[in-house]
Amino acid sequence: MINILFAAGDDAWAQYKAPLRRAFEAAEVAADLHRDHAAIDTDYIILGPGGPVSDFTPYTRCKAVLNLWAGVEKIIKNETLTQPLCRMVDPSLTDAMVEWVVGHTLRHHLGMDAHIRGQDGIWRDDMYPPIAADRPVTILGMGALGAACGQALHQLGFPVTGWSRSPKNIPNIRCLHGDEGLNDALSDAQILILLLPLTVQTENTMNAARLALLAQGAFIINPGRGPLIDDAALLAGLDAGQIAHATLDVFRVEPLPQDHAFWAHPQITVTPHIAATTRPGTAAQVIAQNISGHETGAPLQHLVDRGRGY
Amino acid sequence: MINILFAAGDDAWAQYKAPLRRAFEAAEVAADLHRDHAAIDTDYIILGPGGPVSDFTPYTRCKAVLNLWAGVEKIIKNETLTQPLCRMVDPSLTDAMVEWVVGHTLRHHLGMDAHIRGQDGIWRDDMYPPIAADRPVTILGMGALGAACGQALHQLGFPVTGWSRSPKNIPNIRCLHGDEGLNDALSDAQILILLLPLTVQTENTMNAARLALLAQGAFIINPGRGPLIDDAALLAGLDAGQIAHATLDVFRVEPLPQDHAFWAHPQITVTPHIAATTRPGTAAQVIAQNISGHETGAPLQHLVDRGRGY
Repeated sequence: MINILFAAGDDAWAQYKAPLRRAFEAAEVAADLHRDHAAIDTDYIILGPGGPVSDFTPYTRCKAVLNLWAGVEKIIKNETLTQPLCRMVDPSLTDAMVEWVVGHTLRHHLGMDAHIRGQDGIWRDDMYPPIAADRPVTILGMGALGAACGQALHQLGFPVTGWSRSPKNIPNIRCLHGDEGLNDALSDAQILILLLPLTVQTENTMNAARLALLAQGAFIINPGRGPLIDDAALLAGLDAGQIAHATLDVFRVEPLPQDHAFWAHPQITVTPHIAATTRPGTAAQVIAQNISGHETGAPLQHLVDRGRGY
Repeated sequence: MINILFAAGDDAWAQYKAPLRRAFEAAEVAADLHRDHAAIDTDYIILGPGGPVSDFTPYTRCKAVLNLWAGVEKIIKNETLTQPLCRMVDPSLTDAMVEWVVGHTLRHHLGMDAHIRGQDGIWRDDMYPPIAADRPVTILGMGALGAACGQALHQLGFPVTGWSRSPKNIPNIRCLHGDEGLNDALSDAQILILLLPLTVQTENTMNAARLALLAQGAFIINPGRGPLIDDAALLAGLDAGQIAHATLDVFRVEPLPQDHAFWAHPQITVTPHIAATTRPGTAAQVIAQNISGHETGAPLQHLVDRGRGY
């Protein structure tokens, strides 16, 4: 019997208990899933917000900590967590992210807001957007989410540039990397999508100097992490007309405070961190398969590299 | 030398003259392209709005009339036009239509309008849309445009049903046809896209009885032709909550009159017939290749079937 500790809040337990038990059964893992295993008896920890564990030191037998969410920037600061740590890579989360990113890319590309907000009875049929082939899109971050969004945008005809810290080679995407590649990736991009993990290196990636590299009137879409953008530089870029509009799903403080300038800015669309969310059914399968594989000798999937921070 | 009469208005001539000459040269068609060939000397007519020809009887030598636009419902009523008539099937028009249809489908699927119009400072993070796999989309009309939109929506994970008058077999799309297939195609559809040609049979396809077949709270997207929908039935469906929103690009009268109820209705988005437009560069190539092929013995492409009306 494998003792699996579910270390997350009551809401998560209510959502995940049944899907996890079904997934363990399907993966033929003899799991004893509970919220109250003793530290020394625990083989694996499933970790989510609102859980009881802050000191991982006593979990000496624990073979891995499996996170329910994709982002690990908060967890990684916990120095007692020395066990192997796995990010969540949920295929339905990827699907949801692709829908949100492609939807907002097309929204800005087609200039939909003018029609949604401006039903004034005037027939303006002389403004056509360029076709997608003439609208260069750049994605910062070429992990599972960035690569999937890039493929979907390529399918629709957009020329896609993808940037990542280390070199990548992804079909249909112009892949750039490193500090020099970043300037090249940003130059003349008309739509910028931020899907980088949040690390010490990536904070404020989009500062004033880098915002100025984008095409005049560029659109920014951020479903990654709030601190990837320097908020003051973004506001200045919007007010100067260098940036036409920003659609932001993530913020330095969430929920975004009601008096924050972003809510009231006519060129900013705030969405409440809904671009993509882990869904219990598929996330449970990912966790069960990871544990099942590890128990039969396979390496852990989606391991966090603490040197890189994600 | 092949005498090709350009029968459209001044604006079209300014836009098409250079692209057509380049396309004929590239296709090795020895074309004499002018606006003033005598009727009896004319080998082909390129037809667009605002042109001088209303009586086609004197064009006895004319081998084909090539339309600059996809829709032929007005031209087809001209009984003097007995020459073979070709619709425009422009690949860039198809691309533009796919962008517009996919964009507005994702907009409604993701509930974007609430964020675009309602930036009120309240963080509503408890409303997730279903994933695309749980959002059935139905497309009426499985011609080049409908099939291309269906493929793109399938790529994003939507279950796509396509309906056409005659049977079709298109990969990744549940194809239905005929009167009985129509009821089946509409039943429980959450997003309906209209891409039928306008004929005597298709007028008012979406009447009150058929609107009632859709899922409660369905979205309607009409980039096809205005008269495909019974306007009064649509307004009643919206007001009753049976239809959540309609995004309409085409209307019985265009431009849509400023005092029309559609402009002011909160659940209708009007766009000014911009979903897809013929682009001179690619349209010129389509025409040149059609003439080049016909001159060397190939059948004409995209021939209008006058019995069906498109």
